[in-house]
Amino acid sequence: MPSTTASNSEPFAAERTLADPETPFAVVDVDRVLRNIERLRARTERLGVTLRPHMKTAKSLDVAALLHDGRPCPVTVSSLAEAEAFADGGYTDLTYAVGLAPHKLPRVIALLRRGVRLRVLLDSAEQARCVAEASRKAGLTVPALIEIDCDGHRGGLTPEAAELTAVGGMLADAGCLDGVLTHAGESYFARTGEERRLAAENERDAALTAAGRLRAAGLPVATVSVGSTPTAHAAEDLTGVTELRAGNYVFFDLVMAGLGVCRLDDLALSVVVTVIGHRPEFGWIVTDGGWMAMSRDRGTAAQDRDQGYGLVTDLSGRLIPDLVMTAASQEHGTLTTRNGSELPQLPVGTRLRILPNHACATAAQHRGYRVTDSARRPTGPVPAIEAYWPRVSGW
Amino acid sequence: MPSTTASNSEPFAAERTLADPETPFAVVDVDRVLRNIERLRARTERLGVTLRPHMKTAKSLDVAALLHDGRPCPVTVSSLAEAEAFADGGYTDLTYAVGLAPHKLPRVIALLRRGVRLRVLLDSAEQARCVAEASRKAGLTVPALIEIDCDGHRGGLTPEAAELTAVGGMLADAGCLDGVLTHAGESYFARTGEERRLAAENERDAALTAAGRLRAAGLPVATVSVGSTPTAHAAEDLTGVTELRAGNYVFFDLVMAGLGVCRLDDLALSVVVTVIGHRPEFGWIVTDGGWMAMSRDRGTAAQDRDQGYGLVTDLSGRLIPDLVMTAASQEHGTLTTRNGSELPQLPVGTRLRILPNHACATAAQHRGYRVTDSARRPTGPVPAIEAYWPRVSGW
Repeated sequence: MPSTTASNSEPFAAERTLADPETPFAVVDVDRVLRNIERLRARTERLGVTLRPHMKTAKSLDVAALLHDGRPCPVTVSSLAEAEAFADGGYTDLTYAVGLAPHKLPRVIALLRRGVRLRVLLDSAEQARCVAEASRKAGLTVPALIEIDCDGHRGGLTPEAAELTAVGGMLADAGCLDGVLTHAGESYFARTGEERRLAAENERDAALTAAGRLRAAGLPVATVSVGSTPTAHAAEDLTGVTELRAGNYVFFDLVMAGLGVCRLDDLALSVVVTVIGHRPEFGWIVTDGGWMAMSRDRGTAAQDRDQGYGLVTDLSGRLIPDLVMTAASQEHGTLTTRNGSELPQLPVGTRLRILPNHACATAAQHRGYRVTDSARRPTGPVPAIEAYWPRVSGW
Repeated sequence: MPSTTASNSEPFAAERTLADPETPFAVVDVDRVLRNIERLRARTERLGVTLRPHMKTAKSLDVAALLHDGRPCPVTVSSLAEAEAFADGGYTDLTYAVGLAPHKLPRVIALLRRGVRLRVLLDSAEQARCVAEASRKAGLTVPALIEIDCDGHRGGLTPEAAELTAVGGMLADAGCLDGVLTHAGESYFARTGEERRLAAENERDAALTAAGRLRAAGLPVATVSVGSTPTAHAAEDLTGVTELRAGNYVFFDLVMAGLGVCRLDDLALSVVVTVIGHRPEFGWIVTDGGWMAMSRDRGTAAQDRDQGYGLVTDLSGRLIPDLVMTAASQEHGTLTTRNGSELPQLPVGTRLRILPNHACATAAQHRGYRVTDSARRPTGPVPAIEAYWPRVSGW
């Protein structure tokens, strides 16, 4: 089991099972992570594209080490803090997939000077000018991708935007143009496999249209990058695309299960909480896991089946039927049964696991993960803790 | 300006103004904090009760130092990590105001052995038995408060609950009974001053009823603790109450402003973000501050005026009329005008401040605060950074 130096320095040596740490804390089941990783790895191999996993969900060098047998691989990051942590860990092929704020260029350049190929993202002439100017001043080229908007979800130029070739030209003149990148943000609302397949085709087509326009203008396009966890698992033909990004899939969550992108037993992240009280008159079980431990994310509220703040399992990971975390304050969670059915007997002190709506948001509430491995033969009724894996935080 | 040793070790020496740090980052205006603190201090003095501020919002020894001229005072905490950090800072009178998970007793006892009077909270015979037993084994008394439910909001025994005197008796037999504590959680939904005044009366009456029943049973009740930010600012008569708790008021936020508990210019916490793009076709300005920087909290969605993920000011703190952060992904924020009015001219690279829905949740997304002081004469158009104040994290 890989484990960073930082994790070994954490004072968790005395923790043998999930019943030992004080609650709340985050748990990752490494067997499920490996299964999730293998599924998408096999898909991208079939599709003939490079997989560039997004580190924004796990933000962990230890989780990343599972992606490629412990060897660095191309990755996507959501902050320069992540980029620096992965550079420190030996990763040299990074894409920073958030539109560039120009004042961040000195840190980008410092990474490039370390031999890290860090690509930035932009969608305007203003940003392209800053990148070109910073490259010229630094005597190097900052590789840049142009963000393409494929579905009106967030940033980017539309594939047909008049500015596209101008922005591309400014970058190319400075030797900075690397390619195009798009993200099918709307696929998080695609409710069927067919809708996701169409979203994946649309994502691909948007990227290819933009790449084609740039090439037709005589500009070099090396990278055509697409991806989101839903489309990555639905795409059937990525001809012309060079790489696929996805992040959430290493852990998955209730939103992804609600969409049908994964099954509940693929969910690799949970939060262990303890029962601290009962309100039988209201049908409540109260725990010490509130929004500080789960985040305020209520992603399933927009789905057919609202899972509250999360579903509840016992410490071994078995779902407790109909029990849902329906309310949260800062350090309190409230569990109720879905249809007013009888509450299970869960005395004060009982430890439970909560499966989150949104793994990216819940993981961000924690400094690291206790790691279990459900593939190992259990030595007792409670899963063993195999390691502690720290997270990268901040920006 | 007080500043901990930890903060001095942070590498922020080169940051002179709010235009210097990379975004996103959290900012605290110390002048507003001092004003908010003074207002409630004067109120509690008039009411003749001890103020026991809740550290769960700021989680900062530096903010706490403003409460009482740098000297430790009674405080409330929401985690044992906070309790330990405040004990390290010289605070010896603490209440841990989350129902006790019995496995946390060893850390409680370790704090008591250091000479810290840390009171725990409970509402069941099971917990009382654990506290009594742990006290006996440790050869000391763990002081405990019985949680009273005044409004059906969360945990606690109702003032009339049959178990109350039994739980009190078990604690008293072990020398552990300190008193009662209640929290008017429903006051966050009280929309008028009169509703908050009634909530404060109800909170007081529930605590006094419970204390009276315990006393009538011959049990000692030293502490009668009430409080929430809305009721603390509305209570007019706290006869019989010994202490008042409130936490959010040091920073305040849009939820509190929406309730009328404070004004917008009392809000002391904001997040600085940078414009990274424009989507004029949708009426969007895109920033690098998403839910990772703001939290997923949408508290004002339940109020008359939904403020999205926050209101927008310029770097000096002046509100930009009608501009609202209406959407968030992990590292992207979307700003739109409220009534489709024209977007202000905010080029890529422009830094803005976002006022949050819920200060407790937004602050929790950051490792610390850059500190400004709006009472100081400005030396330029952008507020100076006076200090960096770290936060306590984890449990």
